[in-house]
Amino acid sequence: MKALLSEIRRNPLLWLLVCVPVVFAAHSMKPEAHTLHFLLSLGAIVPLAALLSHATESVTSKTGDAVGGLLNATLGNLTELVIALAALRAGEYLLVKASVAGAIVANTLFMLGASFLLGGLKHHTQEYNRVSARLQAGLLFLATIALLVPSAIVEADAGAGTAAAAFSQKLSVGLSILLIGAYALGMLFSLKTHREFFGTASHGDGDGEEPWPIGLALGTLAVVTIFVALVSEVFVESVQEAAKTFGMTPAFVGFIVVALVGGAAEMASAFSGARKNRLDLSVGIALGSASQIALFVAPVLVLLSYIIGPTPMSLQFWPGAVVMMLIATLTASLATNSGRSAWFVGVLVLMVYLIFAMTLYLLPPANA
Amino acid sequence: MKALLSEIRRNPLLWLLVCVPVVFAAHSMKPEAHTLHFLLSLGAIVPLAALLSHATESVTSKTGDAVGGLLNATLGNLTELVIALAALRAGEYLLVKASVAGAIVANTLFMLGASFLLGGLKHHTQEYNRVSARLQAGLLFLATIALLVPSAIVEADAGAGTAAAAFSQKLSVGLSILLIGAYALGMLFSLKTHREFFGTASHGDGDGEEPWPIGLALGTLAVVTIFVALVSEVFVESVQEAAKTFGMTPAFVGFIVVALVGGAAEMASAFSGARKNRLDLSVGIALGSASQIALFVAPVLVLLSYIIGPTPMSLQFWPGAVVMMLIATLTASLATNSGRSAWFVGVLVLMVYLIFAMTLYLLPPANA
Amino acid sequence: MKALLSEIRRNPLLWLLVCVPVVFAAHSMKPEAHTLHFLLSLGAIVPLAALLSHATESVTSKTGDAVGGLLNATLGNLTELVIALAALRAGEYLLVKASVAGAIVANTLFMLGASFLLGGLKHHTQEYNRVSARLQAGLLFLATIALLVPSAIVEADAGAGTAAAAFSQKLSVGLSILLIGAYALGMLFSLKTHREFFGTASHGDGDGEEPWPIGLALGTLAVVTIFVALVSEVFVESVQEAAKTFGMTPAFVGFIVVALVGGAAEMASAFSGARKNRLDLSVGIALGSASQIALFVAPVLVLLSYIIGPTPMSLQFWPGAVVMMLIATLTASLATNSGRSAWFVGVLVLMVYLIFAMTLYLLPPANA
Repeated sequence: MKALLSEIRRNPLLWLLVCVPVVFAAHSMKPEAHTLHFLLSLGAIVPLAALLSHATESVTSKTGDAVGGLLNATLGNLTELVIALAALRAGEYLLVKASVAGAIVANTLFMLGASFLLGGLKHHTQEYNRVSARLQAGLLFLATIALLVPSAIVEADAGAGTAAAAFSQKLSVGLSILLIGAYALGMLFSLKTHREFFGTASHGDGDGEEPWPIGLALGTLAVVTIFVALVSEVFVESVQEAAKTFGMTPAFVGFIVVALVGGAAEMASAFSGARKNRLDLSVGIALGSASQIALFVAPVLVLLSYIIGPTPMSLQFWPGAVVMMLIATLTASLATNSGRSAWFVGVLVLMVYLIFAMTLYLLPPANA
Repeated sequence: MKALLSEIRRNPLLWLLVCVPVVFAAHSMKPEAHTLHFLLSLGAIVPLAALLSHATESVTSKTGDAVGGLLNATLGNLTELVIALAALRAGEYLLVKASVAGAIVANTLFMLGASFLLGGLKHHTQEYNRVSARLQAGLLFLATIALLVPSAIVEADAGAGTAAAAFSQKLSVGLSILLIGAYALGMLFSLKTHREFFGTASHGDGDGEEPWPIGLALGTLAVVTIFVALVSEVFVESVQEAAKTFGMTPAFVGFIVVALVGGAAEMASAFSGARKNRLDLSVGIALGSASQIALFVAPVLVLLSYIIGPTPMSLQFWPGAVVMMLIATLTASLATNSGRSAWFVGVLVLMVYLIFAMTLYLLPPANA
Repeated sequence: MKALLSEIRRNPLLWLLVCVPVVFAAHSMKPEAHTLHFLLSLGAIVPLAALLSHATESVTSKTGDAVGGLLNATLGNLTELVIALAALRAGEYLLVKASVAGAIVANTLFMLGASFLLGGLKHHTQEYNRVSARLQAGLLFLATIALLVPSAIVEADAGAGTAAAAFSQKLSVGLSILLIGAYALGMLFSLKTHREFFGTASHGDGDGEEPWPIGLALGTLAVVTIFVALVSEVFVESVQEAAKTFGMTPAFVGFIVVALVGGAAEMASAFSGARKNRLDLSVGIALGSASQIALFVAPVLVLLSYIIGPTPMSLQFWPGAVVMMLIATLTASLATNSGRSAWFVGVLVLMVYLIFAMTLYLLPPANA
């Protein structure tokens, strides 16, 4: 407990934890103040995500590589997973998909680009392990194909009809199992059979912070997850109304705002790694997290929708989201191809993200 | 003749030759047993393809490089060509195109991926000549563009109308000639002007098997080609009915089953090369065969349709096939970029093939 | 003045300057002879472009790097800019966009491919600075995404409606500013912070020709620009009618003929560099000029359309043009990836251009 308190004292981000009780109070006292709920739940999720991330690292630092890898895969994107589960239970499949696609794009473009830029402003050129970057880019490429092919192969006129719906459903389950399998084999490859090619970055082990004792870590994990789940319920409820108030399109909120908030803690680690010339860490967090979401979180959500969702959810995204994921994957793959970086590489990658954000922000509501 | 018999004794695949007489017997005695015809003709084509392949190698090993290259281009995919010609004569243009596209995708994804996987399971990492892989990937890229551009540039509403049909026809002839020209120049480049960059793999000369005497080789070539042609007629006739019996979509049969059967002999060589750590051979067969089909077989079929088909055939494929060829080319090009391989690279490439196969298998009949 | 005359005597291309007075005479005496106007204005633009190009180099050779780079960006594609401005004033937005897209494609495919081929026919293999090629390819990639994303993200049904038009307009302005910013940062990167990675090619300083005195250069610049502007008016007026006479589709004229004419002077420099084994120069001119048009000329035209055009022009191109730019960028990026070249690389790149030219030439008029 002392470790937890000292952590809170040290890290100003965690002072936002005060939002957690406030959001519940506001929710029960002013049930109609959607915009307030939205802002408070945003403010509450950020520090909870940071706590979760630290607790996860502490747990995985105690276990062996294989178990640690599995835990990391399950817990690493816990915030995104819990937010998505809240939306899944509410049947808000569009929000689920927007947050999944948004997280992939934010990690591959914003987190990677900003790391390159921040690192490059301090260091003339930076080098990193391109084998590891290539593996993640390859996994992302596979996931993007899995999302792209179904809609590309089925002719447009099959969009309606029950046969098409049944097809889309069966295919989604099949593809989900395939992606989880690929993810598991990828871990086997990088953690077991060919681990000598993968540098220290593959652990993503915080940056020099001391791990907590296992009891505290597990306790924090359990308690914080429950809080994230509760706050996410408020968040999912309020996000649509709040978007209208701010004059933002739902697409922009789901794709950009939620993704940046959900990934705030990881971004802090990635940026600090880049400034310290540990670009391996930044690239590992950015691409590793993106491929985790694409090959693990998204398929698991599809399979879980059979258990906890009102109806099964498919793996089919709207075409615009597929195009953005495809471009993000291609950009990341081109940008990390050489294993070297300078500030302008970061600018180029960030510009692609800016183009997406600008387009979604200006999108007329009818399209959103 | 003795060489032929000893080859048959040595190679269990050739025992399937017994299917050849049986398929003709079944066809004349039970003309309605489509499923039986389909299975027997499949069983007959595999050993005939193996014989053809060995005979071709024996012939080309006797000639100089330029003539040998030309012969290889003409004969190397003789099975695919003869099957496609039978479908062309029957006016089954959809089957022709499915088998061409399917062969390209099967070679670039299944043959290449399985070679990487099988080789990688035995050897920790494997190296191969990336210059050669790049040339083939470049040729494939060009062919895919030639197939993609016409449909992408013409607006959707031009799909009907006689002007559009005439345009598509003229363009197909022009593109076909262009592709054959590119293929010829590619041979000139790899066999003549810059041959020092291309390793031994470019000959694809079997693996250590002794070539037959030229007389036997030419005789086998002639006789077996006639048999393949006859069996293909039965095959093309029966494939649609058989697909229904098995509950497979025609798209799956044309794209996956036919392609794997037609390439069985080459696959055996490629996989055995990979196990023997001769990955140059495997990559050469897989990509070389794919670019042969894309830049030589497909355009020749378009030009031949003016002579032997009921109506001219265009080079325009259905959008799903173009997307799959595009993704296959891109995947092959990314996977062979580094000139090194490990088992997981094979898994990634095979997964892409599995995604295609699964989508086509589940496709509702209306779309097939 | 003597320098100017000696230049004219030395360079047979400049003898075409005789077309300049003739085109004005023809225009006032035979106002209906559109085909004649078209041919004469083509003949007049080529030598004027050559003069402009030489004058620009002379001016930039006198200034420092940063100012020189800015001047180069503004003046380097002056011909294209002035032609496009004439079309912009006339409200011929389709022609403006066709000439911009055509110039990008002609530079990345025709100029680059022909340089590789011509250089490769003389030299067995050639090497060049791949860092510089990568920067330009990265900038082009960004520009292509900026043109692709808006139309891909907006659903098809939003094509009509005033909301969609307003969206497209606002987005175009935003993207234009973004692209100009990226271009400026790219110059900062290559000319200032990381100039050691960029070889001599980045100046594109002619090939060994002696620069003119600054007075002559500035005078030529001013006078010739006015002439190009006047001739362009005639050209834009006559191009549609002339296309009909020659049986060419307007798409072919705008995309292929105009682009090749507008870039004639630069092409001459690029090809001569390739023959002299100075491939850095050729690649620099080809890709540098393409990214200049994509990230500077095109956005500036969009912004200028608010001042001098009858209505604002958007940055949205027709889908076929976007596909061609995307493929051209991808081709250039793959072809320049290794930093080495041989004649067959040039053939492959040129073939892609030929496919585009053939498709546009055969396009039925309804689609053009």
